[in-house]
Amino acid sequence: MVDNHRMSMGEFDLIEHFFWRQAGQGPRRAVVGNGDDCALIAPAPGMQLAVSTDTMVEGRHFLSTVSPARLGHKALAVNLSDLAACGASPMAFTLALTLPRVDEAWLCGFAKGLLDLADEHNCELIGGDTTAGPLSIGITVMGEVPARQALLRSGARPGDDIWVSGFPGLARLALEAFRGSLHPALSGEAFEATRLAMERPDPRVALGVGLRGLASAAIDVSDGLLGDLAHILKRSQVGASLCLDALPVGSWLAERSADEQLDCILAGGDDYELVFTARPEQRARIIELSASLGLVLSRIGHIEAEPGLRLWRGELDVWPDDPERSAVPNRWTSFDHFKGAA
Amino acid sequence: MVDNHRMSMGEFDLIEHFFWRQAGQGPRRAVVGNGDDCALIAPAPGMQLAVSTDTMVEGRHFLSTVSPARLGHKALAVNLSDLAACGASPMAFTLALTLPRVDEAWLCGFAKGLLDLADEHNCELIGGDTTAGPLSIGITVMGEVPARQALLRSGARPGDDIWVSGFPGLARLALEAFRGSLHPALSGEAFEATRLAMERPDPRVALGVGLRGLASAAIDVSDGLLGDLAHILKRSQVGASLCLDALPVGSWLAERSADEQLDCILAGGDDYELVFTARPEQRARIIELSASLGLVLSRIGHIEAEPGLRLWRGELDVWPDDPERSAVPNRWTSFDHFKGAA
Repeated sequence: MVDNHRMSMGEFDLIEHFFWRQAGQGPRRAVVGNGDDCALIAPAPGMQLAVSTDTMVEGRHFLSTVSPARLGHKALAVNLSDLAACGASPMAFTLALTLPRVDEAWLCGFAKGLLDLADEHNCELIGGDTTAGPLSIGITVMGEVPARQALLRSGARPGDDIWVSGFPGLARLALEAFRGSLHPALSGEAFEATRLAMERPDPRVALGVGLRGLASAAIDVSDGLLGDLAHILKRSQVGASLCLDALPVGSWLAERSADEQLDCILAGGDDYELVFTARPEQRARIIELSASLGLVLSRIGHIEAEPGLRLWRGELDVWPDDPERSAVPNRWTSFDHFKGAA
Repeated sequence: MVDNHRMSMGEFDLIEHFFWRQAGQGPRRAVVGNGDDCALIAPAPGMQLAVSTDTMVEGRHFLSTVSPARLGHKALAVNLSDLAACGASPMAFTLALTLPRVDEAWLCGFAKGLLDLADEHNCELIGGDTTAGPLSIGITVMGEVPARQALLRSGARPGDDIWVSGFPGLARLALEAFRGSLHPALSGEAFEATRLAMERPDPRVALGVGLRGLASAAIDVSDGLLGDLAHILKRSQVGASLCLDALPVGSWLAERSADEQLDCILAGGDDYELVFTARPEQRARIIELSASLGLVLSRIGHIEAEPGLRLWRGELDVWPDDPERSAVPNRWTSFDHFKGAA
């Protein structure tokens, strides 16, 4: 019960050896850092703390082919993405690592990927726990956001625009390439590029912070655009129309069939782009934000009072009065249609 | 990659169904509770946030014989114990649950044990994540403590008293009973009582809060009294003398051999009592605190400038000038001597 779970280096030593930073290395947000019973942190006055937790398990959330550095990056990225969807600035995180064995090369790579991303976002590792067992990575991340400015899922109102960042769908394209289900297969270059989208997503932290006071609701696309948008609709008690012709199609996706494009963009997920809503008056400021971040932001639909989600082809800006518009049946209600009903 | 890790009820539904509370049930500390991308919490002005994380894995941190309710209790208790060792008041926690399958009866029992203890300590579940896999429970807990009043491991000074709460060693006695290594075996009554100490520890949260401004250093006894005290000595750059005749011997331990008593008390762990240090001037206030909490607090030794840990038999209060005192070799340097060198 007491110590028989210790790994050969000792739990404390392992975290200390691979993950703790020396003074001057990496961000220092904590008043008391790692190594005591608790770490102590304090948001600035007037700020609230945003907290999110995610666990990644080998074979479920990542493929065994991923490099340790990319895995370390992604494990933190998916958590930072939750902060981004809240409009919070990263502060600190804890790491719970379950490892089948102590593999020094693996741990060095994993720690580098993890801590490089942490440094980039000024986010300090303040606590850790290691156990022996099947590979799994649990992270709890904390960020700060000014009181009452957090982006929630519940703020969308009829008349709001719906926006999405970047080019969702590439991660799913890579996954299908790994599964061998793409015909024709991806070119080598396309495979490496889409694989990067899947294995090394960029959490949209700067976008989330920039959307404070601009967006009415936001969520990150972890499970697929339609599925995640549905969370906003449910929480906000509204419906939506999405214009399929307004969806951003990433360069590697543009070469695939129209059906594959929609499958990946609407039901893909794992890209960690943000979907958000905003009043039409904010369009100019959102376009400015897009330019200042160097990040494509695409307006893809409208929030409506009528519950449910409607998919259309046609002209976004004349819609719903476009005489050419045509309804498209939603065949993506089951998130994971590549594999049959979820 | 995207949804193939979902369990049959769906990750979101499972946490919602078994763990989220209705309005009016349980504590509400969060500004925005569970169900958004992040939960939002804010410590009161002048307070710092204390954060700790722990993972428990079946077969390593708990036996498969434990009831789900006790397991839920213990998973949170070991984390609250870290807050206690810091002098922090519990605020909120996140739960990362890995489950081999969705077993409704198990989840109901686990949730009850977990949430009953959470309610007792006014600690709100603000985030959750469920994955399929071998049973493991990851909790990150957050508490608040007034700025500069947190109990650290680094504050012990030569001349300080060393104290311990309660009766450490009972959890280890229960573990050895489960292992069948006790001769003679425990009586049925003793087995149930010590098993309760192992499976349902009481985190010393009220003691930790009461020790703010009183204790110079503190730690919880998770790995064994000597091992955990060593962390204080290392961090504080001091040594200590422990008087073996001053150790508190719990009622069920009193019936065991002198060697077994020392083995369990000094190297047991898993009881989650607190070991703390304080100036001798604080003795009266600590005795008052003990009375007000109804919790035995035992003075067991002294912090000394000379590095290292010395064990003695003799009279605590005349020590080190006791002519009758005798040094006892430390045969507990390896924490897990029941099982051989760790």
